[in-house]
Amino acid sequence: MTTLPVVQKILSANDAIAAENRAALDAAGALGVNVMASPGAGKTSLILATTQRLPAGLRLAVIEGDVAGSIDADTMAAAGIPVVQINTGGGCHLDAPMVRSALPHLLPAGVDLLLIENVGNLICTAEFALGAHVNLVVGSTPEGHDKPYKYPGMFAAADVVVLNKADVAAVFDFDLDAFQRGVRMVNPQAPIFVLSCRTGEGLEAWVDWLVAACHAEGRRSIPV
Amino acid sequence: MTTLPVVQKILSANDAIAAENRAALDAAGALGVNVMASPGAGKTSLILATTQRLPAGLRLAVIEGDVAGSIDADTMAAAGIPVVQINTGGGCHLDAPMVRSALPHLLPAGVDLLLIENVGNLICTAEFALGAHVNLVVGSTPEGHDKPYKYPGMFAAADVVVLNKADVAAVFDFDLDAFQRGVRMVNPQAPIFVLSCRTGEGLEAWVDWLVAACHAEGRRSIPV
Repeated sequence: MTTLPVVQKILSANDAIAAENRAALDAAGALGVNVMASPGAGKTSLILATTQRLPAGLRLAVIEGDVAGSIDADTMAAAGIPVVQINTGGGCHLDAPMVRSALPHLLPAGVDLLLIENVGNLICTAEFALGAHVNLVVGSTPEGHDKPYKYPGMFAAADVVVLNKADVAAVFDFDLDAFQRGVRMVNPQAPIFVLSCRTGEGLEAWVDWLVAACHAEGRRSIPV
Repeated sequence: MTTLPVVQKILSANDAIAAENRAALDAAGALGVNVMASPGAGKTSLILATTQRLPAGLRLAVIEGDVAGSIDADTMAAAGIPVVQINTGGGCHLDAPMVRSALPHLLPAGVDLLLIENVGNLICTAEFALGAHVNLVVGSTPEGHDKPYKYPGMFAAADVVVLNKADVAAVFDFDLDAFQRGVRMVNPQAPIFVLSCRTGEGLEAWVDWLVAACHAEGRRSIPV
C-alpha cells in the first residue's frame, strides 16, 4: 500500500511535463500523435505506409520508442524520415520526459506531424500522457476481435482506432462487427479505420483523416 | 528516484509468495507453467489445443489472467477444464499473490499440470515470478520475426518458446531463421517449438515436451 502515493507523484510529474511537450508542439505548429498497439500489430508499417501517402510539403518526424534496439528507427532513417530512437531499457511505455528529451532534435527543423511510436504494449502505454494531441490505437486482425473487451483501458483512451491486416481477416475468423461493438462499449466516438498496410486497402481514408487533423482549427485546445 | 526502494520491496515480497506457491505446487505434485505472450499471439488457443492432446489421466487446471472480462475462462469452462479467472483491474501482469489466491480453488481436487495464462504483455509479465516451474513464451508469425530483438527480457526469461501461427508465416514474410537467431542471442538453451494451433502442425512435439516436463525427476529443484 506504500506504492500509491509514489505512483501518483510520478503521474502528476509526468502530466506536468506532458503539458510542456504539448506547448512545445503547439508553438512549432506540429500535431503530435501517440501511436499505441500490441507488439507486431503494425505500428511501424502504418507509419511507413502513411508517410508514402502524405501530401507533398507536409513535414513529418518520428520518435521511435522501444525496449531495446533501433530496428524501426533504422527503417525510418533509411526512408529519409527524421527520427529519434528512445530505448526504455526495459520500461514498458514511453513517458513525457523521454519525449521531451527528443523534441529539440526534431522540432527546430520544422515539423507539421510528429508520430510517436510507443512501446508495443496494450496496457501501460495508455496510462502515461506524452503531450500528444491524438491517441491512436492500432489493432490487427491476427490478434482477434476480442481485444477491446480484454484491454478496455487502451481502447477507451483512443481518439482514433486503426484495424490493420484487414486483408487476412478471414484467415483468422476475425469478426469485424464484434470488434467494432467492443470498441463502442468503451469508446462511443473514436473513428475506426479498417485497412491493410500490406495491400494498401483503406489507407486513403485514414490518411485523409490524419491530414485533416493536422490542419484542424482549434486542435490546440484538446486537453493533454 | 524515490520509487526504486518501493519497487524492490514489492519484488522481494512477490518472490517470497512465489516461493510459497512453488511449495504448494510441489506438495500437490503439480507442474506450474507461466504462459506469457503478446495480446493475441494464441495463449488460449495453445492451451486448448494442448489439452486436447494430453494423455488420459493427466489432470489439468488453468488460471486465466486478464485485465478485464472472462472470455478465455468461459472458453476453458465450456471445454470442461477446471479454471479460475483473475482480473487484474488494469494491472499489466499477474503476480504471486494473485496466483496464491487461486491455488486453493484448484489444487485440492488433484492437479498434475497447472497452466497459468498471464496477461497479454511482452514486457511486464517477465518481471514478476509466480512460482511456476516453467516460463513459456508464445510468439506468433503475424507479430514479425523481430520480436526477440525488441523484447529481449521476455525471451531471456523463457524456459521454452512456442512460435504459433506457423501456417501463415509466408503471408507475413516471417523469417524463421532470424527469429531463432534472435532468441538465441539472449537465450542459448530454451527449446523452440514451431507450430500452428489452427492446423495442428507441430503440436505433438510440444505436447511431448510438456508431458515429459510433468514427469521429470528433479524438476522441483528448479529455482523460482
